Amino acid sequence: MQTRIEHDTMGEVEVPNDALWGAQTQRSLQNFKIGNERLPRAMIRAMGLVKKAAAITNANLGQIPQELAQYIVGAADEVIAGQWDSQFPLVVWQTGSGTQSNMNCNEVIANIANQKLGNPLGAQKPVHPNDHVNRAQSTNDSFPTAIHVAASLQINELLIPAVKSLRDTLHAKSEEFSEIVKIGRTHLQDATPLTLGQEFSGYVSQLDHSLKRLEQALTGLYELPLGGTAVGTGLNAHPDYAVQAAEQLAQLTGLAFVTAPNKFEALAGRDAAVFASGALKTLAVSLNKIANDIRWLASGPRCGFGELRIPENEPGSSIMPGKVNPTQSEAMTMVVAQVLGNDTTINVAGASGNFELNVFMPVIAYNLLQSIQLLGDACNSFNEHCAVGIQANREKIDHFLHDSLMLVTALNPVIGYENAAKVAKTAYKENKTLKQVAVELNLVTAEQFDEVVRPEQMIAPNTK
Amino acid sequence: MQTRIEHDTMGEVEVPNDALWGAQTQRSLQNFKIGNERLPRAMIRAMGLVKKAAAITNANLGQIPQELAQYIVGAADEVIAGQWDSQFPLVVWQTGSGTQSNMNCNEVIANIANQKLGNPLGAQKPVHPNDHVNRAQSTNDSFPTAIHVAASLQINELLIPAVKSLRDTLHAKSEEFSEIVKIGRTHLQDATPLTLGQEFSGYVSQLDHSLKRLEQALTGLYELPLGGTAVGTGLNAHPDYAVQAAEQLAQLTGLAFVTAPNKFEALAGRDAAVFASGALKTLAVSLNKIANDIRWLASGPRCGFGELRIPENEPGSSIMPGKVNPTQSEAMTMVVAQVLGNDTTINVAGASGNFELNVFMPVIAYNLLQSIQLLGDACNSFNEHCAVGIQANREKIDHFLHDSLMLVTALNPVIGYENAAKVAKTAYKENKTLKQVAVELNLVTAEQFDEVVRPEQMIAPNTK
Amino acid sequence: MQTRIEHDTMGEVEVPNDALWGAQTQRSLQNFKIGNERLPRAMIRAMGLVKKAAAITNANLGQIPQELAQYIVGAADEVIAGQWDSQFPLVVWQTGSGTQSNMNCNEVIANIANQKLGNPLGAQKPVHPNDHVNRAQSTNDSFPTAIHVAASLQINELLIPAVKSLRDTLHAKSEEFSEIVKIGRTHLQDATPLTLGQEFSGYVSQLDHSLKRLEQALTGLYELPLGGTAVGTGLNAHPDYAVQAAEQLAQLTGLAFVTAPNKFEALAGRDAAVFASGALKTLAVSLNKIANDIRWLASGPRCGFGELRIPENEPGSSIMPGKVNPTQSEAMTMVVAQVLGNDTTINVAGASGNFELNVFMPVIAYNLLQSIQLLGDACNSFNEHCAVGIQANREKIDHFLHDSLMLVTALNPVIGYENAAKVAKTAYKENKTLKQVAVELNLVTAEQFDEVVRPEQMIAPNTK
Amino acid sequence: MQTRIEHDTMGEVEVPNDALWGAQTQRSLQNFKIGNERLPRAMIRAMGLVKKAAAITNANLGQIPQELAQYIVGAADEVIAGQWDSQFPLVVWQTGSGTQSNMNCNEVIANIANQKLGNPLGAQKPVHPNDHVNRAQSTNDSFPTAIHVAASLQINELLIPAVKSLRDTLHAKSEEFSEIVKIGRTHLQDATPLTLGQEFSGYVSQLDHSLKRLEQALTGLYELPLGGTAVGTGLNAHPDYAVQAAEQLAQLTGLAFVTAPNKFEALAGRDAAVFASGALKTLAVSLNKIANDIRWLASGPRCGFGELRIPENEPGSSIMPGKVNPTQSEAMTMVVAQVLGNDTTINVAGASGNFELNVFMPVIAYNLLQSIQLLGDACNSFNEHCAVGIQANREKIDHFLHDSLMLVTALNPVIGYENAAKVAKTAYKENKTLKQVAVELNLVTAEQFDEVVRPEQMIAPNTK
Repeated sequence: MQTRIEHDTMGEVEVPNDALWGAQTQRSLQNFKIGNERLPRAMIRAMGLVKKAAAITNANLGQIPQELAQYIVGAADEVIAGQWDSQFPLVVWQTGSGTQSNMNCNEVIANIANQKLGNPLGAQKPVHPNDHVNRAQSTNDSFPTAIHVAASLQINELLIPAVKSLRDTLHAKSEEFSEIVKIGRTHLQDATPLTLGQEFSGYVSQLDHSLKRLEQALTGLYELPLGGTAVGTGLNAHPDYAVQAAEQLAQLTGLAFVTAPNKFEALAGRDAAVFASGALKTLAVSLNKIANDIRWLASGPRCGFGELRIPENEPGSSIMPGKVNPTQSEAMTMVVAQVLGNDTTINVAGASGNFELNVFMPVIAYNLLQSIQLLGDACNSFNEHCAVGIQANREKIDHFLHDSLMLVTALNPVIGYENAAKVAKTAYKENKTLKQVAVELNLVTAEQFDEVVRPEQMIAPNTK
Repeated sequence: MQTRIEHDTMGEVEVPNDALWGAQTQRSLQNFKIGNERLPRAMIRAMGLVKKAAAITNANLGQIPQELAQYIVGAADEVIAGQWDSQFPLVVWQTGSGTQSNMNCNEVIANIANQKLGNPLGAQKPVHPNDHVNRAQSTNDSFPTAIHVAASLQINELLIPAVKSLRDTLHAKSEEFSEIVKIGRTHLQDATPLTLGQEFSGYVSQLDHSLKRLEQALTGLYELPLGGTAVGTGLNAHPDYAVQAAEQLAQLTGLAFVTAPNKFEALAGRDAAVFASGALKTLAVSLNKIANDIRWLASGPRCGFGELRIPENEPGSSIMPGKVNPTQSEAMTMVVAQVLGNDTTINVAGASGNFELNVFMPVIAYNLLQSIQLLGDACNSFNEHCAVGIQANREKIDHFLHDSLMLVTALNPVIGYENAAKVAKTAYKENKTLKQVAVELNLVTAEQFDEVVRPEQMIAPNTK
Repeated sequence: MQTRIEHDTMGEVEVPNDALWGAQTQRSLQNFKIGNERLPRAMIRAMGLVKKAAAITNANLGQIPQELAQYIVGAADEVIAGQWDSQFPLVVWQTGSGTQSNMNCNEVIANIANQKLGNPLGAQKPVHPNDHVNRAQSTNDSFPTAIHVAASLQINELLIPAVKSLRDTLHAKSEEFSEIVKIGRTHLQDATPLTLGQEFSGYVSQLDHSLKRLEQALTGLYELPLGGTAVGTGLNAHPDYAVQAAEQLAQLTGLAFVTAPNKFEALAGRDAAVFASGALKTLAVSLNKIANDIRWLASGPRCGFGELRIPENEPGSSIMPGKVNPTQSEAMTMVVAQVLGNDTTINVAGASGNFELNVFMPVIAYNLLQSIQLLGDACNSFNEHCAVGIQANREKIDHFLHDSLMLVTALNPVIGYENAAKVAKTAYKENKTLKQVAVELNLVTAEQFDEVVRPEQMIAPNTK
Repeated sequence: MQTRIEHDTMGEVEVPNDALWGAQTQRSLQNFKIGNERLPRAMIRAMGLVKKAAAITNANLGQIPQELAQYIVGAADEVIAGQWDSQFPLVVWQTGSGTQSNMNCNEVIANIANQKLGNPLGAQKPVHPNDHVNRAQSTNDSFPTAIHVAASLQINELLIPAVKSLRDTLHAKSEEFSEIVKIGRTHLQDATPLTLGQEFSGYVSQLDHSLKRLEQALTGLYELPLGGTAVGTGLNAHPDYAVQAAEQLAQLTGLAFVTAPNKFEALAGRDAAVFASGALKTLAVSLNKIANDIRWLASGPRCGFGELRIPENEPGSSIMPGKVNPTQSEAMTMVVAQVLGNDTTINVAGASGNFELNVFMPVIAYNLLQSIQLLGDACNSFNEHCAVGIQANREKIDHFLHDSLMLVTALNPVIGYENAAKVAKTAYKENKTLKQVAVELNLVTAEQFDEVVRPEQMIAPNTK
């Protein structure tokens, strides 16, 4: 590999000839050979957006020449678009402020711009990575800003639409199944009936609530640290920079970004991310319930609950036809386990700031964005490959409903509680139907039984 | 111990003669000898409130006689007031629906009422624990309603005021310290200056945000499952019961309770509690930062940071004067560790519902209410015994500020970056002050140095 | 309340007249009004044991008079026996070293001893709480020693026997069920058969492994910090004290306690507790699997798996006979959720030591001991009230086994895979038995089918 | 992209022309577009090892032809060596049994073998992915076997050596620093002295203990599920297969693998992984303490503890010389946060098995192996780029030591406790040295003071 020599304040570093990054990125590559987890695409895009907004704002405020700003914006646009992801080789396990990834971004943008201006890689002019690209920024404010921007975009662009799609599918199923009366189950035990549509409406409501929670979490993420610079004071920034840069980011993304009201918190605490993870884990908990219910209700085909049929996406077994493994539920619940663990990581990291800075930022970014991505993707996958194809197994549902002893409740007003209890107990002991026993005991006729025991009357408030 | 005989559908049970509880509570005592953790006071009070609201509503809807309702209300009021806590002996580790605690409450209220009506304990008349006290309820809706009511009350009555008090104290400190310029620290390393007031303003902002998050979490807790009865359908309840009972609870508590829009979710998911725990852990994370900063800044007295003095509440050591252990910070950070663990428990429990019911309710109630109680109490304790007495150690702060090499930044415009760097490096190597070195190197005079190097100019955005 | 005046280095404190505690305990009561969680009985007992061992050792080494030591031992014995638990009123949320609880113990023992010697409470002579009871100790080594002693005793005396009892019951069930062939289930889907005894043998093996893990964890807990005194150096202790005090504790408890090889770790790290919690959470995970399997297999009675019958311990419902809620499984899985959360708490606390001390000791003690207690009690409860009474529902098991399509596998060698698949698919589609279809398709006779399709041949390695 | 047509029991699938994988892998790619996390290299290698061991064993037992076995072994060797990682494109979020990754491995090995035998991709002969490569295996036993093999290898080859290297460096530092007496700190407050070597010896002891714990965890991982096939019964395997295949794996890896004593547990529980994660989190907790101590002791350079100097690996700031950010500590503590979160994930996943199978295997594999990798890499990085270069800042250490008020303890025997206390309090209040005050108060002469107050006498047990 051919290299060029770059300099920083500690001396010379050999950088691969065609790398758009510079000395600081290279040092990080050498000093942090830990794992393979790079900062995700969403962070690279967000860093590009931050650099773009900063350049525009700085130019507007007369802090850098308009022409240089235009080249920075042009280069940032390419970074935003994903054209240079391979030039962001750093792993999560680096400086806790993300300094090296911030410098990576500064170096790449400067090199792209300078190349277009006819200069070689590493020239650092006319666009200087620090003086121009990083102008009025410290990693300490620009990196957490990128976290907020990245998470906000991913929640808005990926997660919310994915949750909504799944919600809409389940809502459609709820309506489709609105007339199917089935046995309820509490404590895993047979209970009073409800409709399958009602059961699904609970899932819909869980997702509706989670969508609201995501919106609540977003309000915190919309507050941006940018403008706090090194310790929150805004040293080296123009007094109007913080507000205007946030406005730029709002304009560039269409999201309601504003400057954080207190920059000391904004650098030292990552509470908005911690709370957002709290909303994500709540969504995860909802999805766990839904995915579990569906796989249990689809268990069988012969020796389980079997009330639902789910799409067969792949061979479950080369031997056994009808074996449909609930693989989408499995993928979903594994994602849930991951999100719950990520939440722990984010809690520990978020609790560990000291003085003017929280230095657990890359690990927070990595986990928060992984949770968003996985939940979003899993909702889409579950929706497309499972939820839309869910069918009710009417025979099984009817069989259980009418086999259940619990329907005896309906006989109470007619034959009294004592007799009803006797019917149920006898049916259980002798493995008979309620109707059989009730008729055998001469308590009702078959016709009377059918008239009174009507589960479809038991699915709503009914006391007068 | 003298006993009386009570009956339930499984037969006879011996109950202590003077116990207000009945057969079902007694069975639970015998079947669940697990740990010592009883349901907390806040749950007993909330169960009382639910019974009261239900009785009033049922009477208004003609479901139970007004006179009986009055006696139930009277008994419930005593339970609410805490008069009968000793009659709630059951532990958390029981039926996952809380059935036995719900029955405990029904039994106690019925017995209190019947005693007042001149009947012996266990008479079950004229007030019947099931038919009247538990009327139009199942444990499955009334117990989670009690969780929501208990958590909402504790958040409103204990936690929010406690956070506000601490916030106000820190805000006052922030203003008191607004002129004290000190060295900033990022990565635990000396950085550019800020005021001590600014540093404290970050804490204030963290708590302000957490207060907002608590309000967001409350909106979910205000939605009540009551009226869903056994599986969410509302079987055996009057159609108007759910809405009116929630209104009653709102009136009784002054909180914005409403009936949950979907009762199937309301029974099967405890997501509002999971999300509320997410707000609590975020508050915990904030408090960890604050308590940690304060104990590090108060470390010493001679061999630490020592920028703050905190109240001396107890002998730190019988040998060493001046040893003030930051015990309130320690209590607070232990509470934080507990709250983070409780959050994990609540996540696991919240994710584990099946079909029409989540049967991890007592453990959710226990952890959620413990987190609220501990955070509230710890905020009050920390506020009263630490925060209000925090003093700035001006000598130490000034010493660090002026000893710091970072102030060299201010010389950049005068002597150039290269020379400034030389000054700083020399000062570090030779263990001298910046001023000493700068003057020795003939780069500035002492007077010039004092004019230019002014930390109080470095605490705000300053670029024109 | 009548009070007496006690003094400490900070001045006077009013202490209730009859309290055995003194000034330092009283100050803690006033300064830490946080929650209600007192240090558990197991810790009080262990602190008593530590004081007893220290007194004997100090007397043997000539550090305190033999006569005073005898009185200390006498008082400590009463504390160990649980006679004075009410005199330990302090909560967990105090100084992170547990200093105040250590002083509480010193004060109580000194007062008991001095009373016996004819002196009033608070006399502090002839037995002085610091000079004699706390001799050659600092809280920093004696409190974590008490944690190790308490946890070791509780694991040995409560948890291991409880796990063994449950293991033995499940083993007996495994043998009882060794001939019952049933359908296997993977992915919740019907799979090849096994015996119910084999299924239960997996649970036995899980518990056998967990017992081994508890033993592994104990080796770390057996290493005692005692003798490290304030910072690990052993300042103010006799050179032979550490070894001999550990020997005393071994003798007093019958457990293999030794002095920790490195006292600096022993004070600053609580890793042995963290690892022990790792063994506890692994046990919890095993128990979750067992308790869940049992409640799913007992689900029904009509509309679930229903392969097991579990004891009916309390009325499941006043309406529905046969509704047996799996309440012991519910209590167990709630305990599991708690233990997983406690593990998080212990991790956070264990990771938070600084320099010469970890100051998260009370919260570690509280959570570790709660996990041990709950797991032990829950195993006993689950064993006694559920496991011993588990019965196989042979009809249901047989029905599922023979209804399953998976048995078609056995036909492969006779009619070929293609035909076998056709049989299974047809049976599934037309809702028939394999036998019906196979005979209808003229692939085998009924007799041939019965000869070939024999599930009891499919429960062991069978390839020649 | 050119494709070929492959078949499975569900029909035709288009597979990229040059892909070594087949239909089942392709279906998974289409059905699980969730995240980017592929199964790690360590799993691919381990799956290769399992296939190799199975082929050898099956051939030895006459289950497959020796010649085919040789080709399978040859292909597996290439997979083991990492030659075909790009042919394993599946993500973690798939079937919870890992079936699709197992089939991926079967397909790749079969295609490699068949190509060498002159057949085109997809020929499935003479080596058939199921009949030969997967012979006597189910995913249900071979995938968890691969997890155990992968984790065992990574712990032995990467993690243990890395921990040992760091341990050895810290041990060398402990010896190098054995004469440097410094102030101790408990509660972050100045305490009695110890040597810097003693302080480091605590870190060494923590790592020694963690190495022991890793060995304890390995004993569980060494027990292999292989031979249990679909549900633990070993159906379709030769009776000697389980034992011999485990022996093969032991031989191939040099590790002490044995067949699991109970295959029902081995498939349905992942407890050994849960416990291994418990050992990893304990190591993480130790490393957190070490990395935190080092960064706090290196805080400064002027306004912190500053007792240690750590290597300067990258520019901390372009402005401030001497600013050495403790970036290796930051990377390490971020890794710790990740490992603690992974532990939560593994707990949740491990607790979620049902009946004959735990279907959270890919997520367990992913998190367990990530924790091992990150801890191993971070130990190496921290060792190489930080620990080996740690230097004591003797001036700072001496300054703190002699500035500390705690040394007054040594005067107790000479001037009495009361006078000593007076000296300390006065020194604190008037900001003087102990010596100054003691001499000023005419309690000792300067010479006496120097003779008596000797910290180097305070670093070991000293009572006679």
